[in-house]
Amino acid sequence: MLVRGSGDYDRHMKWFAASSLLAVSLYGVQHIHAEAPAHPRLVMTQPDVVEIRSRLGRLPLFDSSLGAVQAEVDAEMALGIDTPQPLDYSGGYTHERHKRNYAMAQKAGALYQILGEQKYARYVRDMLFQYASMYLSLPLHPKPRSYARGKIFWQCLNDANWLVYMSQAYDAIYEFLAHQERDTLEKELFRPFADHVSINSPQFFNRIHNHSTWGTAAVGMIGLAMNDEGLIQRALYGLDLDNFGDARDDDGGFIRQVGQKAGYFANLDSAFSPDGYYTEGPYYQRYALYPYLAFAQSLRNAGHREQAFDRNDGVLLKAVETLIELSDRDGELFPLNDAQKGMSLHAAEVVAAVDVAYQASGDRRLLEIAEGQGRVLLDGAGYAVAAAIAKGESQPFRKSSLKLSDGRLGTEGGLAVLRAGNEDLTLVFKYTAQGLSHGHYDKLSFSLHRQGMEVLQDYGMVRFVNVDQKGGGNYLPENTTWAKQTIAHNTLAVNETSHFQGQYEIGSQHHSELDFFDAGSPAVQVVSAVEANAYPGLSMRRTMALLDLAAIEAPVVLDILEVQSDAENQYDLPFHFLGQVVDANFAYTAEPQLSALGEGHGYQHLHLEAKGQPEGENAQLTWLNGGRFYTLTSVAEPADELLFARLGANDPDFNLRRDPAFMIRRKDAGDSLFVSVVEPHGSYSPVTELATNAVSSIKALSVVLRTEHYIVIHIATKDDQQAMFYLSRMGDAEGPHQVEIDNEVVRWTGPFHFAQRLAEPIRE
Amino acid sequence: MLVRGSGDYDRHMKWFAASSLLAVSLYGVQHIHAEAPAHPRLVMTQPDVVEIRSRLGRLPLFDSSLGAVQAEVDAEMALGIDTPQPLDYSGGYTHERHKRNYAMAQKAGALYQILGEQKYARYVRDMLFQYASMYLSLPLHPKPRSYARGKIFWQCLNDANWLVYMSQAYDAIYEFLAHQERDTLEKELFRPFADHVSINSPQFFNRIHNHSTWGTAAVGMIGLAMNDEGLIQRALYGLDLDNFGDARDDDGGFIRQVGQKAGYFANLDSAFSPDGYYTEGPYYQRYALYPYLAFAQSLRNAGHREQAFDRNDGVLLKAVETLIELSDRDGELFPLNDAQKGMSLHAAEVVAAVDVAYQASGDRRLLEIAEGQGRVLLDGAGYAVAAAIAKGESQPFRKSSLKLSDGRLGTEGGLAVLRAGNEDLTLVFKYTAQGLSHGHYDKLSFSLHRQGMEVLQDYGMVRFVNVDQKGGGNYLPENTTWAKQTIAHNTLAVNETSHFQGQYEIGSQHHSELDFFDAGSPAVQVVSAVEANAYPGLSMRRTMALLDLAAIEAPVVLDILEVQSDAENQYDLPFHFLGQVVDANFAYTAEPQLSALGEGHGYQHLHLEAKGQPEGENAQLTWLNGGRFYTLTSVAEPADELLFARLGANDPDFNLRRDPAFMIRRKDAGDSLFVSVVEPHGSYSPVTELATNAVSSIKALSVVLRTEHYIVIHIATKDDQQAMFYLSRMGDAEGPHQVEIDNEVVRWTGPFHFAQRLAEPIRE
Repeated sequence: MLVRGSGDYDRHMKWFAASSLLAVSLYGVQHIHAEAPAHPRLVMTQPDVVEIRSRLGRLPLFDSSLGAVQAEVDAEMALGIDTPQPLDYSGGYTHERHKRNYAMAQKAGALYQILGEQKYARYVRDMLFQYASMYLSLPLHPKPRSYARGKIFWQCLNDANWLVYMSQAYDAIYEFLAHQERDTLEKELFRPFADHVSINSPQFFNRIHNHSTWGTAAVGMIGLAMNDEGLIQRALYGLDLDNFGDARDDDGGFIRQVGQKAGYFANLDSAFSPDGYYTEGPYYQRYALYPYLAFAQSLRNAGHREQAFDRNDGVLLKAVETLIELSDRDGELFPLNDAQKGMSLHAAEVVAAVDVAYQASGDRRLLEIAEGQGRVLLDGAGYAVAAAIAKGESQPFRKSSLKLSDGRLGTEGGLAVLRAGNEDLTLVFKYTAQGLSHGHYDKLSFSLHRQGMEVLQDYGMVRFVNVDQKGGGNYLPENTTWAKQTIAHNTLAVNETSHFQGQYEIGSQHHSELDFFDAGSPAVQVVSAVEANAYPGLSMRRTMALLDLAAIEAPVVLDILEVQSDAENQYDLPFHFLGQVVDANFAYTAEPQLSALGEGHGYQHLHLEAKGQPEGENAQLTWLNGGRFYTLTSVAEPADELLFARLGANDPDFNLRRDPAFMIRRKDAGDSLFVSVVEPHGSYSPVTELATNAVSSIKALSVVLRTEHYIVIHIATKDDQQAMFYLSRMGDAEGPHQVEIDNEVVRWTGPFHFAQRLAEPIRE
Repeated sequence: MLVRGSGDYDRHMKWFAASSLLAVSLYGVQHIHAEAPAHPRLVMTQPDVVEIRSRLGRLPLFDSSLGAVQAEVDAEMALGIDTPQPLDYSGGYTHERHKRNYAMAQKAGALYQILGEQKYARYVRDMLFQYASMYLSLPLHPKPRSYARGKIFWQCLNDANWLVYMSQAYDAIYEFLAHQERDTLEKELFRPFADHVSINSPQFFNRIHNHSTWGTAAVGMIGLAMNDEGLIQRALYGLDLDNFGDARDDDGGFIRQVGQKAGYFANLDSAFSPDGYYTEGPYYQRYALYPYLAFAQSLRNAGHREQAFDRNDGVLLKAVETLIELSDRDGELFPLNDAQKGMSLHAAEVVAAVDVAYQASGDRRLLEIAEGQGRVLLDGAGYAVAAAIAKGESQPFRKSSLKLSDGRLGTEGGLAVLRAGNEDLTLVFKYTAQGLSHGHYDKLSFSLHRQGMEVLQDYGMVRFVNVDQKGGGNYLPENTTWAKQTIAHNTLAVNETSHFQGQYEIGSQHHSELDFFDAGSPAVQVVSAVEANAYPGLSMRRTMALLDLAAIEAPVVLDILEVQSDAENQYDLPFHFLGQVVDANFAYTAEPQLSALGEGHGYQHLHLEAKGQPEGENAQLTWLNGGRFYTLTSVAEPADELLFARLGANDPDFNLRRDPAFMIRRKDAGDSLFVSVVEPHGSYSPVTELATNAVSSIKALSVVLRTEHYIVIHIATKDDQQAMFYLSRMGDAEGPHQVEIDNEVVRWTGPFHFAQRLAEPIRE
């Protein structure tokens, strides 16, 4: 049973009073931590202020950031303060106004500290008093959609955002306020506000979820600002409450499992894998990091006895580094799971994360990222970054090939990123756990990026965040019916059904397993993973390699997907390419009328545009996008169907992009093998009108050996280079291995072997 | 009857000997122009060479251009010279190789002059001798598609390109060659080559067409290089030959009309309107300008008694300025008629045009364009530009609102460009003549651009220039069946039939007429034009205005389309928007299956995606593209159909983009009126996830008066600003005019009147 809303307040008081916490924070009850340093003490300290003031005008990045913020705040202040009666979902006026209020107040507080101009303090004070005058009498927000409604916003999440920022604003003007003013604000605004997002909304506060990270940081930061150890402990360790059953949040995620710990530390302990990967994916990692870091920074600045940066081998700082690694050459985050495309390292949350992480770690590579961001926080962390950059301490952040474990203990699958050249080709291969309620049903899927462009895409999410006309800016129905489904991704869909039947209950019990990862040689980088639970009685292993073929201008992707199944199935392997079809080596027939490709699991959103059949051992498709050609070469079986599909069926509100997909369909197959090469080549410019190397260099792709123990792939190029990829199947990966092909014996150890031959001898 | 090919050579000799030209150039016969200056004398002179050499290393733009060219040529020289037997269409190896050869030879010649290194001269010499050794025995190119086949290339056009560049290469190394070497090259290569593209291909050489511009410049420039007055005169005045009947070229254009003059001057006299507009549109203007300018430059440098720059009030230089005006803020040319999107001021031809035009005119605004191009020609013109930029003489090129006449005499309609802000909004309105064989059937169409982005697009052409797999890089069938058709443009299609029934014979006899153009006030810019011939018994006038409404953040477009017809018709008015539908103020129903919207005239390529009907006086559609919202508000009649269409039906080879269109369909209508406002508003960023001003500011758009003499449009904004646009209909445009609406009398003179009212009084 959910307990929520102010009506339940008395009940909460009872359990809270009986809880194991030493200090409690209810109206008027407060425990003072005697040694707290003077204000400000959250994101900025008194020594920071002294030093920042002494170097104003001498640190370009800090000065330009300051100038931009000052211009923004001054313009906003000229409009006056508005704290309207809460009414709207995100995108609507009252929502956006209150969001802007807390952002402006936080910035004005910083300006007051840095510039010493009292007008900024007065602006913050007046705004806070406007809120204080309305808060206690505010009902729950009138919009009913959230599982945990706020009072200022339709969901507690946004109320918690408000408090994280307003804590900083309050901290900044604390000394400016009269004692009586502080009393009023704390009694009539901050304490009841903190209670609403925690005690009154335990289903929001007491979870392991990014919502709770915001909630706990909010309560903890206002606790630090007010020096209220009770609130701080509530934030760090959560409420002692466990009776959520199998209640769900708005996205279908479980509220809480019995026995699970709660609070900021419990979230921190379970949010990131030991490699710093956040299970929901980089889009939410960006979002979740800010409250983690801001509270960690505040705990440190306030000199609290409990600290966060060092916890779990410094995973919080590791997570910042990992987030940066999970971006393309332009800094756009890989859109794994629910994710808005275009979200990037330029986001305000990442500016904050980079600055705070630099201040805590001294990792000079973060300075290069900060330079690219072009702005810093107006606090101690931002100052540290600007000062170090001014001293020339920046070092290159070279993104690398890497594997990241998923899960709290790093035991729930993971993610691999293989990079070649200067991010000329980046392969993102996903064998993670479900990713909580924002996860997609896309086991062993991949996306491919060239520099800052998508070659084979992950669709991302179907949501126009904060665009009110599009479903209030919230997740749209097609996010569930398309974006989460298997067929929306570059991975195998069986019998037109998504992995785990698209059921969160099933998916969240499983994860894929890494088989091996080897990025030791830039010429041959390989990752392989296994998924045994997506479909009953079926297991699949996918091995993906970035190969630098000597006779081909750029690295290629080799994709080997092995399927083992008890039964005969229909297999669909889609490739979500972007761009315009240039050529195919098989005949295809366009459909005279376009109908949906299927009934459900995402198929209902694809129009079948054309259909063909292989005319030889390989099916080859060439397309053009962003001035470069790409060719997919696949080993085809004679009965395979080659489908061209286009997104947009059953999309009554035009929520979906009209993106293309190419799909290999194999019917009535049990054990099966899909082998493909994705090859970027040549270039095209509409200015020079020159097309270079517009044709694939691959003459033939074939499976020359397929036994219980080995798979051997042969790639022949048009100028007769031969490349062989030897793959050990499940079992004894280390070997030694030996195969004989055409009277030639090849021996190797380890899970794979790669050899190229121009004429003689074999190059390795 | 066409005369072509080397087999007809004797016949040509006969008529040529009998022609009125004073000098003839056949094998071995040569007239020397005694006063020709020393070599080089085409694009560079001896004094240029002396000055360039003296300032090497001191003009950054010239030095960097030189460095880039030297690196390119050195790399190419290292590969050796290949002059393969001609075999391929464009995109194929032999085609691209020969293209690269002439480009490299021209550049190597320039390097020889500038750097004095003999290796460059030897490279040019050796390449020319390889060509000389093969040329006389070469048959016609084996590919049969062209109406005028070349010998090196499949079409004479490319052979002429070759000769324009090789003339410069030859000129550059002329003094390096022994007398005997020159004799050989001239006898065995250049003269027969010049004869092939002229005497042997009169259907190519003797036209008024960009093909003939290349042909005549080629013959003229090699004539100047060899000092052969016969070739020069042939180039300047053409062949005396008139018997082409109604033969057509590959694009369906007429070869030549009886009595028409020919040659370079005749082309120059008729190619550009007095305003410097090239009737085929900016894409081909770019292409055509280079040979005009290179030959003009060569005539001047060679001190020939006949000059081109001053001809027709300097229209050649005017045409360069006009080309620049016909680009968006990023310098991309407006894709009118057959045009490749993305072609821009960065094209090599435009670099050449800007440099040559600056040298001839001294217009300092061209220097800013050259700075943007980032490179200059390695000749006297490029040197002049680099030297002036180094002296700081660059001035801003501020693109303006302007109208351009079409037709040789400026009497065949034209084109208007209205610009607001810093090209924040640019309206391109087309009321031209047909535009020769590259013209589209799009009378009174428009396109709308925001900065460098398309808001309402002109599709451009269906051709992947030089991409061999796409129909040999040539025009694809869908260029005719889609891109040229009326429905592919933002203009009225009647009874699902294109203007002039899509018949070139009819279209080329007509042009629209400008009614008025007034860009005198930045707040109210208006253009109006009439088309009376597109459909029998029907005439239409379209008035388009950029209005700066006081209460709206950015200028809007007001579009008033009046139709007068003897009969009842079906009218389709499409808006080819780009981006994603955000909202509509009417219900619409998506089609369960997608079928083609019609049978022909482009309709066969559109899928109907959804259909709706107006629910009030206005139909409103909002979409999002490139971080900005746009709303189309149209005055709707209750029976109007509102169609959402998507390109891609009947496209068996995926030659078409899957672009959307919104269409107002009105059936059984005679005289009719379409009034719309296009309104850019707000912004969206996937990084900040902030949506600002995402909703249209227009509350109502209405026709408050519609009489025989006047149309009055009323725009009401959501904050109750009122704007009135008073338009005089055909006839007495100047007035004085007077209308009475709601007991208020408004008087004005001139074709239109615009008034805004916030409360009281009317602002004008």
